[in-house]
Amino acid sequence: MSATTRTNPSQPRRMRDVHHWDIETDVAIVGFGGAGGCAAIEAADSGSEVVIFELASAGGGSTAMSSAEIYMGGSGGTRVQRACGFDDNTEDMFTYMMMTAGPLADEAKIRNYCENSLGHFQWLVDRGVTFKDSFHQERAIVCLTDDGLLYTGNEKAYPFAQQAKPCPRGHNLQVEGDNGGPLFIKIIADNVEQRDAISVEYEARALTLIVDDDNRVTGLVVRINQQEHNVRARQGVILCAGGFVMNEEMVNKFAPMLARGNVPCGNPGDTGSGILMGMAVGGTAINMHEGFISLPYYPPASMTRGILINDKGQRFINEDVYHGRMGAYLLNQQSERFYYILTVDQYGDYEKTSYLSADVVATGESVAELESELGLRKSSLQQTIALYNEDCQAGEDTMQHKAAEWLEPLKPPLAALDVTPGRGAIFPYFTLGGLDTLPSGEVVDPQRQPIQGLFAAGRTACGVVRTGQGYSSGMSVGDATFSGRMAGIAASAVVRSRA
Amino acid sequence: MSATTRTNPSQPRRMRDVHHWDIETDVAIVGFGGAGGCAAIEAADSGSEVVIFELASAGGGSTAMSSAEIYMGGSGGTRVQRACGFDDNTEDMFTYMMMTAGPLADEAKIRNYCENSLGHFQWLVDRGVTFKDSFHQERAIVCLTDDGLLYTGNEKAYPFAQQAKPCPRGHNLQVEGDNGGPLFIKIIADNVEQRDAISVEYEARALTLIVDDDNRVTGLVVRINQQEHNVRARQGVILCAGGFVMNEEMVNKFAPMLARGNVPCGNPGDTGSGILMGMAVGGTAINMHEGFISLPYYPPASMTRGILINDKGQRFINEDVYHGRMGAYLLNQQSERFYYILTVDQYGDYEKTSYLSADVVATGESVAELESELGLRKSSLQQTIALYNEDCQAGEDTMQHKAAEWLEPLKPPLAALDVTPGRGAIFPYFTLGGLDTLPSGEVVDPQRQPIQGLFAAGRTACGVVRTGQGYSSGMSVGDATFSGRMAGIAASAVVRSRA
Repeated sequence: MSATTRTNPSQPRRMRDVHHWDIETDVAIVGFGGAGGCAAIEAADSGSEVVIFELASAGGGSTAMSSAEIYMGGSGGTRVQRACGFDDNTEDMFTYMMMTAGPLADEAKIRNYCENSLGHFQWLVDRGVTFKDSFHQERAIVCLTDDGLLYTGNEKAYPFAQQAKPCPRGHNLQVEGDNGGPLFIKIIADNVEQRDAISVEYEARALTLIVDDDNRVTGLVVRINQQEHNVRARQGVILCAGGFVMNEEMVNKFAPMLARGNVPCGNPGDTGSGILMGMAVGGTAINMHEGFISLPYYPPASMTRGILINDKGQRFINEDVYHGRMGAYLLNQQSERFYYILTVDQYGDYEKTSYLSADVVATGESVAELESELGLRKSSLQQTIALYNEDCQAGEDTMQHKAAEWLEPLKPPLAALDVTPGRGAIFPYFTLGGLDTLPSGEVVDPQRQPIQGLFAAGRTACGVVRTGQGYSSGMSVGDATFSGRMAGIAASAVVRSRA
Repeated sequence: MSATTRTNPSQPRRMRDVHHWDIETDVAIVGFGGAGGCAAIEAADSGSEVVIFELASAGGGSTAMSSAEIYMGGSGGTRVQRACGFDDNTEDMFTYMMMTAGPLADEAKIRNYCENSLGHFQWLVDRGVTFKDSFHQERAIVCLTDDGLLYTGNEKAYPFAQQAKPCPRGHNLQVEGDNGGPLFIKIIADNVEQRDAISVEYEARALTLIVDDDNRVTGLVVRINQQEHNVRARQGVILCAGGFVMNEEMVNKFAPMLARGNVPCGNPGDTGSGILMGMAVGGTAINMHEGFISLPYYPPASMTRGILINDKGQRFINEDVYHGRMGAYLLNQQSERFYYILTVDQYGDYEKTSYLSADVVATGESVAELESELGLRKSSLQQTIALYNEDCQAGEDTMQHKAAEWLEPLKPPLAALDVTPGRGAIFPYFTLGGLDTLPSGEVVDPQRQPIQGLFAAGRTACGVVRTGQGYSSGMSVGDATFSGRMAGIAASAVVRSRA
């Protein structure tokens, strides 16, 4: 075998080809983002010696780039939820999260997440994460105030609200502006720094796993200072290396629909290497086709009063859904163009507050004029808006079930934004596939038998978040931090049970 | 390791644990359906010694259960196409097939398929498959006459017809009734029988692959007469073991949307074992979420003149598409009910000719009455039908682009069939995911590096067919037989190149 093939993540190194260990530890963690940081803290606090290998020259990963909203609740409510008057119920949270994942749901994982969510809140607070006991009223994509709680998904929208009592579960760090991610990572990094049992190797690229003759993962190969190092991980390796949104070849292979978006969301390390390393030793990559594609037609929240139509002039989704759900349904239409129709009042300060950048492509002093300007079939948009306006008057959206608070007749003059993928608007996207794991973080083969010595968390694993149509902000960092902790604990338990 | 874990397809047997070979051959083939049979013939004709291991007590697989239409054309047309007046163009075939796969397309594989399709036709004819030089005019799901050629997909429908010149490519064996599958397999089995270099072991269950220390596939373990046998395959193993539609756990994990269908299409051996064996040695399973789900609202062809609506009374697809495309778009709507609206004339002899079994759930002497009977929003269906009828009068479906030949105003009295999944109608389904392979049939890892000694074909591989929205009849058996041949040739070439 040449040196080149040895360092391919798809070709694990055999332990019998390892003649000495350059580094030895109990638990080796690949990636120092939200998942890797939390895994390290828990593993260390469980008595393990830990080394984190981070590709970049500082920790953070995609968590640092995010707003770091954290999806938590249930069990009567977190301190913040209760202070804001929401007594969240575990079953409502469970039902909601099961609906967000649809048939792709991992029920055991969602159950574990919901039942331990209050404990997770407390764990974060105990480690220095602060949340203000205040509720952000405005419908927003990110919270630009230091309020501690907001709605971040489809909780109040059809069909979710009809099956699970709505409750806000997006917890926002106490910081002004969109600065939650850097603050969160600083707190986690401080915790890592304080623990002597954890050391961090930066600018260290994990190349491939090392397995023994029974396919047990016993370590990994990393490259530091252009030198390959064999790392012995006595208890296990935890892959927290992010997703694959930055690997164009993998996106094209597994989730090509996402390429209709134009701004990948992630950090440069999201090359799928963690997923590939896991697959190479028998781990199962699941949900690889799924992802999130955004259509951020708000803020301002007033735009929710507009309507989204396809090139038949038809509405096809309630416009009060979270932007990722709108993106998912938009991509599934047989339609060459999509327009967002609204009044001047509804448009408001869109140009300032949104980063969507969709262009106004038509205006009309009447619906008929707008319809004609857009080249839609005569009478199509007129009929859609006639029914919609009747419904607004009556206070019930009989067609798409948008909540009554957003119903306002569309009275000309009207404008149309072109929100067609590829026509100027910004469509951020990210992947939702990863290694199948048990709730403990153990990576499993297609028969769900654990690969000994291998764990995954965060976006390298396939967690509680499964679909773009159900995605809610705060679920990624919520899942990354929670699943990181589970894996850190489990990797230490493995060792403890052997001792 | 216990005997149980050794025989798990997800855990390959190490060659160093193999102490003797019970069977030795050049090429071992798992599965004797259309793919395995064609692979065996080509491998034998290339000078290899071949053993086929078939789970059942006779060959056939899913090919024998199918109509065995075979999708072929291009290069000026097959003999049958030309005799029927169609001078098929390779680029039109290529464009059409690329559209059927959309962003999931494997361009190299489709290119290879199209450019060699006439050669494949001749190969089949040379081996005794007979096609009559006659064209079946009627729009049909299966051809019940012995005509040799018919349209079997979306070639004439929007948006395909606008980008690739329509041409029928479904080749139907010369036999009356829906009997193409058994006849085709009989011909293939006769060819296998005639070749001394091929032997077949029936009631032989492939358990797992055998790999050497460099992860080269050197054989497999099969169970025959309750005894495990180690099989040495000097040139390679070809997995032709079908898909995973009969493995409920795998469908739930990888393609849970398909579970909205209620009749799995496949043979009992479609348990995914071939795919699992390939994954376990580093092969990549791709396209695992995709599948075909049928909504056979025709025959009779006259039903194409009706319209499909969601619970908003909206049309969302042109009704002249192939039934799999209609199923795919139906599942992607946010709608709790789906109805097929038609006149008594259009209904015709539906009860006799269709096996859909959807129930008439409402009738109306007027559209308003039908709308009310169905509980649709007042004016919604009326508006849809008003626009549709106007378009029919004008001869152009401006909304959904159904071809002019199917446009006929919907004049009451009208009836509505409930075609909602789970409400009585029959929704057949099958999977379209499998092992990623090169056009040669070599199984590849996620970096597209071949796994030495391993090939796959038919539904165990992920072939030219990638989506339900674009599926056309004849592509499965077309792909199975063609990819089987490629793998048989490649497995022999490997050996030849070593010799």
